[in-house]
Amino acid sequence: MRLARLGEPGQERPAVIDDQGLTRDLTSLTHDIDGAFLAADGIARTRRALAEGTLPALESDELRFGPPVARPGIVLCIGQNYAAHAAESGAEPPTRPVIFFKPPNTVVGAYDEVRIPRGSAKTDWEVELAVVIGKRAQYLDSPEQALEHVAGYTIANDVSERDFQLVHSGGQWSKGKSCATFNPLGPYLVPADEVPDVQNLRLRSSVNGEPRQDSSTADMIFSVAQIVHDLSQYLVLDPGDVISTGTPEGVALSGRFPYLSAGDVMEIEIEGLGRQRQVLGKA
Amino acid sequence: MRLARLGEPGQERPAVIDDQGLTRDLTSLTHDIDGAFLAADGIARTRRALAEGTLPALESDELRFGPPVARPGIVLCIGQNYAAHAAESGAEPPTRPVIFFKPPNTVVGAYDEVRIPRGSAKTDWEVELAVVIGKRAQYLDSPEQALEHVAGYTIANDVSERDFQLVHSGGQWSKGKSCATFNPLGPYLVPADEVPDVQNLRLRSSVNGEPRQDSSTADMIFSVAQIVHDLSQYLVLDPGDVISTGTPEGVALSGRFPYLSAGDVMEIEIEGLGRQRQVLGKA
Repeated sequence: MRLARLGEPGQERPAVIDDQGLTRDLTSLTHDIDGAFLAADGIARTRRALAEGTLPALESDELRFGPPVARPGIVLCIGQNYAAHAAESGAEPPTRPVIFFKPPNTVVGAYDEVRIPRGSAKTDWEVELAVVIGKRAQYLDSPEQALEHVAGYTIANDVSERDFQLVHSGGQWSKGKSCATFNPLGPYLVPADEVPDVQNLRLRSSVNGEPRQDSSTADMIFSVAQIVHDLSQYLVLDPGDVISTGTPEGVALSGRFPYLSAGDVMEIEIEGLGRQRQVLGKA
Repeated sequence: MRLARLGEPGQERPAVIDDQGLTRDLTSLTHDIDGAFLAADGIARTRRALAEGTLPALESDELRFGPPVARPGIVLCIGQNYAAHAAESGAEPPTRPVIFFKPPNTVVGAYDEVRIPRGSAKTDWEVELAVVIGKRAQYLDSPEQALEHVAGYTIANDVSERDFQLVHSGGQWSKGKSCATFNPLGPYLVPADEVPDVQNLRLRSSVNGEPRQDSSTADMIFSVAQIVHDLSQYLVLDPGDVISTGTPEGVALSGRFPYLSAGDVMEIEIEGLGRQRQVLGKA
Protein backbone atom coordinates (compact mmCIF):
# COMPACT_ATOMS: atom_id res chain seq x y z
CA MET A 1 0.00 0.00 0.00
CA ARG A 2 0.95 3.63 -0.48
CA LEU A 3 -0.22 6.67 1.49
CA ALA A 4 -1.04 9.88 -0.35
CA ARG A 5 -2.60 13.29 0.22
CA LEU A 6 -4.91 14.22 -2.66
CA GLY A 7 -6.46 17.55 -3.55
CA GLU A 8 -5.69 21.23 -3.95
CA PRO A 9 -2.91 22.85 -1.88
CA GLY A 10 -3.99 23.19 1.74
CA GLN A 11 -7.09 21.06 1.13
CA GLU A 12 -5.53 17.65 0.57
CA ARG A 13 -7.40 14.68 1.96
CA PRO A 14 -5.65 11.55 3.24
CA ALA A 15 -5.84 8.48 1.02
CA VAL A 16 -4.40 5.02 0.65
CA ILE A 17 -3.69 3.23 -2.62
CA ASP A 18 -4.03 -0.52 -2.14
CA ASP A 19 -1.98 -3.23 -3.82
CA GLN A 20 -4.55 -3.48 -6.63
CA GLY A 21 -4.09 0.23 -7.37
CA LEU A 22 -7.46 1.26 -5.95
CA THR A 23 -7.55 4.56 -4.07
CA ARG A 24 -9.47 4.69 -0.81
CA ASP A 25 -10.42 7.60 1.40
CA LEU A 26 -8.66 7.68 4.79
CA THR A 27 -10.78 10.50 6.23
CA SER A 28 -12.64 8.11 8.53
CA LEU A 29 -9.29 7.19 10.13
CA THR A 30 -7.48 10.53 10.28
CA HIS A 31 -7.95 14.14 9.27
CA ASP A 32 -4.47 14.16 7.72
CA ILE A 33 -1.25 12.24 7.17
CA ASP A 34 1.09 14.03 9.53
CA GLY A 35 3.48 13.42 12.39
CA ALA A 36 0.70 12.79 14.90
CA PHE A 37 -0.92 10.17 12.63
CA LEU A 38 2.39 8.39 12.02
CA ALA A 39 3.30 8.46 15.73
CA ALA A 40 -0.11 6.99 16.64
CA ASP A 41 0.54 3.83 14.64
CA GLY A 42 -1.28 5.23 11.61
CA ILE A 43 0.34 2.91 9.11
CA ALA A 44 -0.70 -0.24 10.99
CA ARG A 45 -4.21 1.16 11.50
CA THR A 46 -4.48 1.89 7.78
CA ARG A 47 -3.38 -1.64 6.96
CA ARG A 48 -6.00 -3.08 9.31
CA ALA A 49 -8.75 -0.90 7.88
CA LEU A 50 -7.77 -1.95 4.35
CA ALA A 51 -7.89 -5.62 5.37
CA GLU A 52 -11.30 -5.14 6.97
CA GLY A 53 -12.62 -3.46 3.82
CA THR A 54 -14.08 -0.51 5.73
CA LEU A 55 -12.52 2.30 3.68
CA PRO A 56 -14.69 3.84 0.93
CA ALA A 57 -13.32 4.11 -2.60
CA LEU A 58 -12.17 7.56 -3.67
CA GLU A 59 -12.61 8.84 -7.22
CA SER A 60 -9.07 10.15 -7.61
CA ASP A 61 -8.40 10.51 -11.34
CA GLU A 62 -8.68 14.29 -11.30
CA LEU A 63 -7.01 14.89 -7.96
CA ARG A 64 -3.61 16.49 -7.48
CA PHE A 65 -0.98 14.66 -5.47
CA GLY A 66 0.02 16.90 -2.56
CA PRO A 67 3.11 16.22 -0.47
CA PRO A 68 2.51 12.84 1.22
CA VAL A 69 3.17 14.19 4.71
CA ALA A 70 1.66 17.41 6.03
CA ARG A 71 3.59 20.07 7.90
CA PRO A 72 6.97 18.40 8.50
CA GLY A 73 8.64 20.08 11.47
CA ILE A 74 11.94 20.04 9.59
CA VAL A 75 13.24 19.17 6.14
CA LEU A 76 16.81 18.12 6.86
CA CYS A 77 19.19 17.32 4.01
CA ILE A 78 22.42 15.35 3.94
CA GLY A 79 25.09 16.95 1.76
CA GLN A 80 27.52 15.10 -0.49
CA ASN A 81 26.41 11.62 0.52
CA TYR A 82 27.48 10.04 -2.79
CA ALA A 83 31.23 10.08 -3.43
CA ALA A 84 30.94 10.85 -7.16
CA HIS A 85 28.66 13.84 -6.46
CA ALA A 86 31.08 15.18 -3.83
CA ALA A 87 33.79 14.95 -6.50
CA GLU A 88 31.72 16.76 -9.16
CA SER A 89 31.03 19.51 -6.56
CA GLY A 90 34.77 19.88 -5.98
CA ALA A 91 34.72 18.41 -2.45
CA GLU A 92 36.25 15.48 -0.58
CA PRO A 93 33.80 12.79 0.57
CA PRO A 94 32.67 13.70 4.11
CA THR A 95 33.76 11.65 7.12
CA ARG A 96 30.54 12.42 9.05
CA PRO A 97 27.09 13.28 7.68
CA VAL A 98 26.96 16.95 6.63
CA ILE A 99 23.56 18.57 7.28
CA PHE A 100 21.59 21.60 6.24
CA PHE A 101 17.93 22.57 6.41
CA LYS A 102 15.27 23.73 3.96
CA PRO A 103 12.23 25.65 5.23
CA PRO A 104 9.21 23.32 5.27
CA ASN A 105 7.26 25.87 3.22
CA THR A 106 9.40 24.86 0.20
CA VAL A 107 7.57 21.51 0.05
CA VAL A 108 5.17 21.04 -2.87
CA GLY A 109 3.56 18.07 -4.62
CA ALA A 110 5.35 15.68 -6.97
CA TYR A 111 3.77 17.16 -10.11
CA ASP A 112 3.54 20.83 -9.08
CA GLU A 113 5.27 23.60 -10.99
CA VAL A 114 8.79 24.49 -9.82
CA ARG A 115 9.44 28.19 -10.19
CA ILE A 116 12.87 29.53 -11.09
CA PRO A 117 13.52 32.32 -8.59
CA ARG A 118 14.07 35.91 -9.66
CA GLY A 119 17.72 36.61 -10.36
CA SER A 120 18.55 32.93 -10.86
CA ALA A 121 20.92 31.71 -13.56
CA LYS A 122 21.76 28.36 -11.97
CA THR A 123 18.68 26.41 -10.91
CA ASP A 124 19.57 22.72 -10.62
CA TRP A 125 17.89 19.34 -9.89
CA GLU A 126 18.76 16.70 -7.26
CA VAL A 127 16.91 13.38 -6.98
CA GLU A 128 17.02 12.09 -3.39
CA LEU A 129 15.65 9.27 -1.29
CA ALA A 130 13.58 10.93 1.45
CA VAL A 131 13.04 9.35 4.86
CA VAL A 132 9.92 10.17 6.90
CA ILE A 133 10.29 9.78 10.67
CA GLY A 134 7.55 7.84 12.49
CA LYS A 135 8.81 7.85 16.08
CA ARG A 136 10.80 10.42 18.07
CA ALA A 137 14.55 9.71 17.89
CA GLN A 138 17.16 11.08 20.31
CA TYR A 139 20.45 9.50 21.40
CA LEU A 140 19.78 6.18 19.68
CA ASP A 141 22.14 3.39 20.70
CA SER A 142 22.89 1.94 17.27
CA PRO A 143 22.20 2.24 13.55
CA GLU A 144 20.21 -1.01 13.79
CA GLN A 145 17.82 0.63 16.25
CA ALA A 146 17.47 3.66 13.98
CA LEU A 147 15.28 2.00 11.36
CA GLU A 148 12.54 1.43 13.95
CA HIS A 149 12.09 5.22 13.91
CA VAL A 150 11.44 5.41 10.16
CA ALA A 151 7.79 5.39 9.05
CA GLY A 152 8.50 5.17 5.34
CA TYR A 153 10.16 6.51 2.24
CA THR A 154 9.36 8.86 -0.59
CA ILE A 155 11.13 10.90 -3.28
CA ALA A 156 12.46 14.46 -2.89
CA ASN A 157 13.74 16.79 -5.57
CA ASP A 158 16.20 18.97 -3.62
CA VAL A 159 16.03 21.84 -6.12
CA SER A 160 19.01 24.19 -5.69
CA GLU A 161 20.15 27.56 -6.94
CA ARG A 162 23.92 27.29 -7.14
CA ASP A 163 24.85 30.98 -7.03
CA PHE A 164 22.52 31.52 -4.06
CA GLN A 165 24.01 28.38 -2.43
CA LEU A 166 27.70 29.00 -3.09
CA VAL A 167 28.23 32.68 -3.97
CA HIS A 168 25.54 34.69 -2.11
CA SER A 169 25.83 32.50 0.95
CA GLY A 170 29.05 32.97 2.90
CA GLY A 171 29.48 29.22 2.48
CA GLN A 172 26.22 28.21 4.23
CA TRP A 173 24.26 26.27 1.61
CA SER A 174 20.68 26.86 2.82
CA LYS A 175 20.32 30.17 0.97
CA GLY A 176 20.29 28.30 -2.34
CA LYS A 177 17.93 25.60 -1.09
CA SER A 178 15.10 27.66 0.38
CA CYS A 179 13.25 29.25 -2.54
CA ALA A 180 9.49 28.74 -2.91
CA THR A 181 8.58 25.41 -4.64
CA PHE A 182 12.14 24.06 -4.20
CA ASN A 183 11.13 20.76 -2.60
CA PRO A 184 8.76 18.54 -4.59
CA LEU A 185 7.95 15.59 -2.32
CA GLY A 186 6.09 12.40 -3.18
CA PRO A 187 4.00 11.18 -4.86
CA TYR A 188 3.48 8.57 -2.12
CA LEU A 189 4.69 7.60 1.28
CA VAL A 190 5.72 3.94 1.02
CA PRO A 191 5.76 2.19 4.42
CA ALA A 192 9.27 1.19 5.45
CA ASP A 193 8.37 -2.49 5.75
CA GLU A 194 7.26 -2.53 2.10
CA VAL A 195 10.70 -1.46 0.85
CA PRO A 196 12.70 -4.71 0.73
CA ASP A 197 16.19 -3.15 0.69
CA VAL A 198 16.37 0.62 1.00
CA GLN A 199 20.12 0.53 0.28
CA ASN A 200 19.63 -1.04 -3.13
CA LEU A 201 17.26 1.24 -5.04
CA ARG A 202 18.02 2.70 -8.45
CA LEU A 203 17.42 6.48 -8.59
CA ARG A 204 17.37 8.55 -11.74
CA SER A 205 16.64 12.00 -13.08
CA SER A 206 16.13 13.42 -16.56
CA VAL A 207 15.56 16.85 -18.07
CA ASN A 208 13.40 17.13 -21.21
CA GLY A 209 13.69 13.35 -21.57
CA GLU A 210 17.50 13.32 -21.54
CA PRO A 211 19.11 11.29 -18.76
CA ARG A 212 20.98 13.12 -16.03
CA GLN A 213 21.48 11.17 -12.78
CA ASP A 214 21.45 7.35 -12.71
CA SER A 215 22.77 5.71 -9.59
CA SER A 216 21.80 3.49 -6.67
CA THR A 217 21.24 4.05 -2.98
CA ALA A 218 23.91 1.33 -2.62
CA ASP A 219 26.40 4.11 -3.41
CA MET A 220 25.49 6.24 -0.39
CA ILE A 221 28.44 7.01 1.87
CA PHE A 222 26.18 6.94 4.95
CA SER A 223 23.21 4.56 4.94
CA VAL A 224 19.75 5.55 6.14
CA ALA A 225 20.37 3.69 9.39
CA GLN A 226 23.71 5.44 9.92
CA ILE A 227 22.20 8.85 9.12
CA VAL A 228 19.28 8.52 11.55
CA HIS A 229 21.58 7.18 14.27
CA ASP A 230 24.13 9.95 13.72
CA LEU A 231 21.55 12.76 13.61
CA SER A 232 19.99 11.50 16.84
CA GLN A 233 23.29 12.27 18.63
CA TYR A 234 22.92 15.96 17.73
CA LEU A 235 19.22 16.75 17.57
CA VAL A 236 15.74 15.39 18.18
CA LEU A 237 13.93 13.90 15.18
CA ASP A 238 10.16 14.12 15.52
CA PRO A 239 7.40 12.18 13.76
CA GLY A 240 6.65 13.70 10.35
CA ASP A 241 10.17 15.11 9.96
CA VAL A 242 11.68 14.58 6.51
CA ILE A 243 15.33 13.68 5.86
CA SER A 244 16.63 13.91 2.29
CA THR A 245 19.61 11.60 2.06
CA GLY A 246 21.76 13.27 -0.59
CA THR A 247 21.99 13.18 -4.35
CA PRO A 248 24.22 11.20 -6.74
CA GLU A 249 26.34 12.65 -9.55
CA GLY A 250 24.80 14.11 -12.71
CA VAL A 251 23.63 17.59 -11.73
CA ALA A 252 24.23 20.79 -13.69
CA LEU A 253 26.77 21.99 -11.11
CA SER A 254 29.14 19.40 -12.61
CA GLY A 255 29.45 21.55 -15.74
CA ARG A 256 28.32 18.60 -17.92
CA PHE A 257 24.73 19.86 -18.39
CA PRO A 258 22.98 23.21 -18.76
CA TYR A 259 21.06 24.68 -15.82
CA LEU A 260 17.25 24.72 -15.92
CA SER A 261 15.15 27.18 -17.93
CA ALA A 262 11.45 27.99 -17.85
CA GLY A 263 9.55 25.38 -19.83
CA ASP A 264 12.01 22.57 -19.06
CA VAL A 265 10.61 19.32 -17.68
CA MET A 266 12.29 17.52 -14.78
CA GLU A 267 11.46 13.87 -14.19
CA ILE A 268 12.89 11.92 -11.29
CA GLU A 269 12.22 8.43 -10.05
CA ILE A 270 13.29 5.91 -7.45
CA GLU A 271 12.73 2.19 -7.83
CA GLY A 272 9.63 1.12 -5.91
CA LEU A 273 8.75 4.68 -4.84
CA GLY A 274 7.24 6.03 -8.04
CA ARG A 275 8.18 9.06 -10.09
CA GLN A 276 7.85 12.82 -10.12
CA ARG A 277 7.50 15.28 -12.99
CA GLN A 278 7.77 19.07 -12.79
CA VAL A 279 7.52 21.77 -15.41
CA LEU A 280 9.73 24.78 -14.72
CA GLY A 281 8.06 28.18 -14.47
CA LYS A 282 9.21 31.58 -13.30
CA ALA A 283 8.71 33.28 -9.95
CA MET B 1 1.90 45.79 26.27
CA ARG B 2 3.72 42.47 26.00
CA LEU B 3 2.39 39.15 24.72
CA ALA B 4 3.35 35.95 26.51
CA ARG B 5 2.49 32.27 26.63
CA LEU B 6 2.24 31.04 30.21
CA GLY B 7 2.12 27.51 31.57
CA GLU B 8 3.76 24.12 31.31
CA PRO B 9 5.38 23.02 28.01
CA GLY B 10 2.71 22.21 25.43
CA GLN B 11 -0.02 23.68 27.66
CA GLU B 12 0.84 27.37 27.55
CA ARG B 13 -2.08 29.78 27.50
CA PRO B 14 -1.97 33.11 25.68
CA ALA B 15 -1.65 36.19 27.86
CA VAL B 16 -1.00 39.89 27.66
CA ILE B 17 0.84 42.00 30.21
CA ASP B 18 -0.48 45.55 30.20
CA ASP B 19 1.49 48.73 30.78
CA GLN B 20 0.71 48.58 34.51
CA GLY B 21 2.29 45.10 34.66
CA LEU B 22 -1.02 43.29 35.10
CA THR B 23 -1.34 39.95 33.33
CA ARG B 24 -4.57 39.21 31.49
CA ASP B 25 -5.85 36.04 29.92
CA LEU B 26 -6.11 36.15 26.09
CA THR B 27 -7.97 32.85 25.77
CA SER B 28 -11.22 34.62 24.87
CA LEU B 29 -9.45 36.16 21.87
CA THR B 30 -7.29 33.28 20.61
CA HIS B 31 -6.37 29.73 21.50
CA ASP B 32 -2.68 30.55 21.07
CA ILE B 33 -0.14 33.16 20.02
CA ASP B 34 1.02 31.78 16.71
CA GLY B 35 1.40 32.71 13.06
CA ALA B 36 -2.32 32.57 12.37
CA PHE B 37 -3.08 34.91 15.28
CA LEU B 38 -0.40 37.41 14.23
CA ALA B 39 -1.51 37.29 10.58
CA ALA B 40 -5.14 37.94 11.61
CA ASP B 41 -4.27 41.27 13.21
CA GLY B 42 -3.92 39.69 16.64
CA ILE B 43 -1.80 42.48 18.11
CA ALA B 44 -4.32 45.19 17.20
CA ARG B 45 -7.20 43.04 18.46
CA THR B 46 -5.37 42.50 21.76
CA ARG B 47 -4.80 46.22 22.11
CA ARG B 48 -8.50 46.91 21.50
CA ALA B 49 -9.58 44.27 24.01
CA LEU B 50 -7.20 45.75 26.61
CA ALA B 51 -8.63 49.22 26.02
CA GLU B 52 -12.19 47.90 26.33
CA GLY B 53 -11.30 46.16 29.60
CA THR B 54 -12.84 42.85 28.54
CA LEU B 55 -9.89 40.59 29.34
CA PRO B 56 -9.99 38.81 32.72
CA ALA B 57 -6.98 39.04 35.05
CA LEU B 58 -4.74 35.97 35.15
CA GLU B 59 -3.03 34.85 38.37
CA SER B 60 0.38 34.38 36.81
CA ASP B 61 2.90 34.39 39.67
CA GLU B 62 3.47 30.65 39.55
CA LEU B 63 3.31 30.24 35.79
CA ARG B 64 6.25 29.39 33.56
CA PHE B 65 7.04 31.64 30.60
CA GLY B 66 6.88 29.49 27.48
CA PRO B 67 8.26 30.68 24.13
CA PRO B 68 6.14 33.76 23.20
CA VAL B 69 5.22 32.37 19.77
CA ALA B 70 3.99 28.82 19.23
CA ARG B 71 5.24 26.53 16.50
CA PRO B 72 7.37 28.85 14.34
CA GLY B 73 7.61 27.40 10.83
CA ILE B 74 11.30 28.25 10.78
CA VAL B 75 13.95 29.59 13.12
CA LEU B 76 16.33 31.34 10.77
CA CYS B 77 19.60 32.81 12.05
CA ILE B 78 21.90 35.43 10.59
CA GLY B 79 25.57 34.56 10.99
CA GLN B 80 28.33 37.03 11.82
CA ASN B 81 26.16 40.12 11.72
CA TYR B 82 28.38 42.09 14.12
CA ALA B 83 31.85 42.90 12.76
CA ALA B 84 33.67 42.32 16.07
CA HIS B 85 32.05 38.87 16.45
CA ALA B 86 33.01 37.92 12.88
CA ALA B 87 36.58 38.88 13.80
CA GLU B 88 36.62 36.83 17.04
CA SER B 89 35.30 33.86 15.00
CA GLY B 90 38.18 34.25 12.57
CA ALA B 91 36.05 35.46 9.64
CA GLU B 92 35.75 38.53 7.45
CA PRO B 93 32.55 40.56 7.87
CA PRO B 94 30.01 39.24 5.35
CA THR B 95 28.96 41.28 2.32
CA ARG B 96 25.45 39.73 2.24
CA PRO B 97 23.46 38.23 5.13
CA VAL B 98 24.66 34.67 5.88
CA ILE B 99 21.85 32.33 6.94
CA PHE B 100 21.38 29.01 8.66
CA PHE B 101 18.45 27.28 10.32
CA LYS B 102 17.74 25.72 13.70
CA PRO B 103 14.98 23.11 14.04
CA PRO B 104 11.92 24.73 15.68
CA ASN B 105 11.90 21.94 18.28
CA THR B 106 15.00 23.57 19.85
CA VAL B 107 12.82 26.45 21.11
CA VAL B 108 12.21 26.57 24.87
CA GLY B 109 11.13 29.23 27.35
CA ALA B 110 13.29 32.09 28.62
CA TYR B 111 13.89 30.50 32.04
CA ASP B 112 13.96 26.81 31.05
CA GLU B 113 16.97 24.59 31.63
CA VAL B 114 19.49 24.41 28.78
CA ARG B 115 21.03 20.96 28.57
CA ILE B 116 24.64 20.46 27.50
CA PRO B 117 24.50 17.71 24.86
CA ARG B 118 26.29 14.40 25.30
CA GLY B 119 29.84 14.54 24.01
CA SER B 120 29.98 18.34 24.22
CA ALA B 121 33.06 20.21 25.42
CA LYS B 122 32.24 23.56 23.82
CA THR B 123 28.71 24.74 24.60
CA ASP B 124 28.50 28.51 24.12
CA TRP B 125 26.00 31.39 24.52
CA GLU B 126 24.83 33.99 21.98
CA VAL B 127 22.43 36.80 22.88
CA GLU B 128 20.42 37.88 19.81
CA LEU B 129 17.59 40.20 18.89
CA ALA B 130 14.83 37.97 17.48
CA VAL B 131 12.30 39.20 14.91
CA VAL B 132 8.85 37.60 14.70
CA ILE B 133 7.16 37.83 11.31
CA GLY B 134 3.54 38.99 11.23
CA LYS B 135 2.75 39.07 7.52
CA ARG B 136 3.97 36.88 4.65
CA ALA B 137 7.03 38.38 2.94
CA GLN B 138 8.28 37.47 -0.54
CA TYR B 139 10.13 39.66 -3.05
CA LEU B 140 9.73 42.85 -1.05
CA ASP B 141 10.58 46.01 -2.97
CA SER B 142 12.64 47.78 -0.32
CA PRO B 143 14.03 47.58 3.21
CA GLU B 144 11.53 50.30 4.21
CA GLN B 145 8.65 48.03 3.20
CA ALA B 146 10.16 45.13 5.17
CA LEU B 147 9.30 46.45 8.63
CA GLU B 148 5.57 46.24 7.82
CA HIS B 149 6.03 42.46 7.88
CA VAL B 150 7.44 42.37 11.41
CA ALA B 151 4.96 41.66 14.23
CA GLY B 152 7.39 42.25 17.06
CA TYR B 153 10.63 41.50 18.80
CA THR B 154 11.92 39.20 21.50
CA ILE B 155 15.20 37.76 22.81
CA ALA B 156 16.87 34.56 21.57
CA ASN B 157 19.82 32.73 23.08
CA ASP B 158 21.33 31.01 20.02
CA VAL B 159 23.08 28.32 22.09
CA SER B 160 25.86 26.66 20.07
CA GLU B 161 28.18 23.67 20.37
CA ARG B 162 31.36 24.78 18.63
CA ASP B 163 32.86 21.36 17.85
CA PHE B 164 29.53 20.16 16.45
CA GLN B 165 29.27 23.46 14.49
CA LEU B 166 32.81 23.68 13.14
CA VAL B 167 34.50 20.25 13.40
CA HIS B 168 31.73 17.61 13.05
CA SER B 169 29.95 19.61 10.41
CA GLY B 170 31.76 19.72 7.07
CA GLY B 171 31.52 23.51 7.42
CA GLN B 172 27.70 23.70 7.64
CA TRP B 173 26.97 25.32 11.00
CA SER B 174 23.50 23.89 11.73
CA LYS B 175 24.85 20.71 13.32
CA GLY B 176 26.11 22.73 16.29
CA LYS B 177 22.92 24.78 16.57
CA SER B 178 20.26 22.05 16.64
CA CYS B 179 20.54 20.28 19.99
CA ALA B 180 17.49 20.01 22.24
CA THR B 181 16.89 23.15 24.38
CA PHE B 182 19.35 25.22 22.29
CA ASN B 183 16.97 28.11 21.61
CA PRO B 184 15.53 29.88 24.66
CA LEU B 185 13.07 32.45 23.29
CA GLY B 186 11.26 35.20 25.17
CA PRO B 187 10.13 36.04 27.77
CA TYR B 188 7.73 38.32 25.83
CA LEU B 189 6.80 39.32 22.34
CA VAL B 190 7.00 43.11 22.26
CA PRO B 191 4.92 44.64 19.43
CA ALA B 192 7.12 46.29 16.81
CA ASP B 193 5.41 49.67 17.23
CA GLU B 194 6.34 49.69 20.92
CA VAL B 195 10.07 49.46 20.19
CA PRO B 196 11.09 53.07 19.48
CA ASP B 197 14.36 52.29 17.64
CA VAL B 198 15.18 48.65 17.06
CA GLN B 199 18.63 49.58 15.79
CA ASN B 200 19.62 51.21 19.05
CA LEU B 201 19.12 48.60 21.77
CA ARG B 202 21.79 47.54 24.23
CA LEU B 203 22.18 43.75 24.42
CA ARG B 204 24.18 41.89 27.04
CA SER B 205 24.99 38.46 28.35
CA SER B 206 26.65 37.18 31.51
CA VAL B 207 27.69 33.80 32.90
CA ASN B 208 27.53 33.26 36.68
CA GLY B 209 27.14 37.00 37.04
CA GLU B 210 30.31 37.88 35.11
CA PRO B 211 29.80 40.04 32.03
CA ARG B 212 30.36 38.50 28.61
CA GLN B 213 28.69 40.30 25.69
CA ASP B 214 27.81 44.01 25.86
CA SER B 215 26.96 45.69 22.61
CA SER B 216 24.20 47.49 20.73
CA THR B 217 21.99 46.60 17.80
CA ALA B 218 23.43 49.80 16.31
CA ASP B 219 26.52 47.68 15.56
CA MET B 220 24.68 45.21 13.28
CA ILE B 221 26.17 44.98 9.81
CA PHE B 222 22.70 44.37 8.30
CA SER B 223 19.72 46.05 9.97
CA VAL B 224 16.44 44.27 10.64
CA ALA B 225 14.91 46.02 7.63
CA GLN B 226 17.79 45.00 5.39
CA ILE B 227 17.67 41.40 6.63
CA VAL B 228 13.93 40.95 6.05
CA HIS B 229 14.19 42.59 2.64
CA ASP B 230 17.19 40.47 1.64
CA LEU B 231 15.69 37.18 2.88
CA SER B 232 12.49 37.87 0.96
CA GLN B 233 14.49 37.73 -2.28
CA TYR B 234 15.44 34.10 -1.55
CA LEU B 235 12.61 32.55 0.41
CA VAL B 236 9.11 33.09 1.75
CA LEU B 237 8.80 34.32 5.33
CA ASP B 238 5.52 33.28 6.94
CA PRO B 239 3.71 34.69 9.98
CA GLY B 240 5.14 33.24 13.18
CA ASP B 241 8.58 32.65 11.66
CA VAL B 242 11.48 33.71 13.88
CA ILE B 243 14.66 35.41 12.64
CA SER B 244 17.59 35.69 15.03
CA THR B 245 19.70 38.58 13.86
CA GLY B 246 23.19 37.57 14.94
CA THR B 247 25.29 37.96 18.07
CA PRO B 248 27.92 40.51 19.11
CA GLU B 249 31.44 39.71 20.36
CA GLY B 250 32.08 38.14 23.73
CA VAL B 251 31.34 34.43 23.31
CA ALA B 252 33.53 31.56 24.50
CA LEU B 253 34.60 30.79 20.92
CA SER B 254 36.77 33.92 21.15
CA GLY B 255 39.10 32.09 23.56
CA ARG B 256 38.63 34.83 26.17
CA PHE B 257 36.14 32.89 28.34
CA PRO B 258 35.60 29.25 29.35
CA TYR B 259 32.81 27.23 27.70
CA LEU B 260 29.69 26.37 29.71
CA SER B 261 29.49 23.63 32.35
CA ALA B 262 26.54 22.05 34.14
CA GLY B 263 25.42 24.31 36.96
CA ASP B 264 26.47 27.52 35.22
CA VAL B 265 23.90 30.30 34.93
CA MET B 266 23.43 32.25 31.69
CA GLU B 267 21.65 35.59 31.82
CA ILE B 268 20.95 37.63 28.72
CA GLU B 269 19.00 40.80 28.20
CA ILE B 270 18.04 43.34 25.58
CA GLU B 271 16.97 46.88 26.42
CA GLY B 272 13.18 47.11 26.41
CA LEU B 273 12.66 43.40 25.71
CA GLY B 274 13.32 41.93 29.15
CA ARG B 275 15.80 39.32 30.26
CA GLN B 276 16.36 35.58 30.22
CA ARG B 277 18.05 33.28 32.74
CA GLN B 278 18.98 29.65 32.18
CA VAL B 279 20.71 27.13 34.41
CA LEU B 280 22.84 24.62 32.52
CA GLY B 281 22.06 20.94 32.94
CA LYS B 282 23.14 17.78 31.14
CA ALA B 283 21.38 15.83 28.41
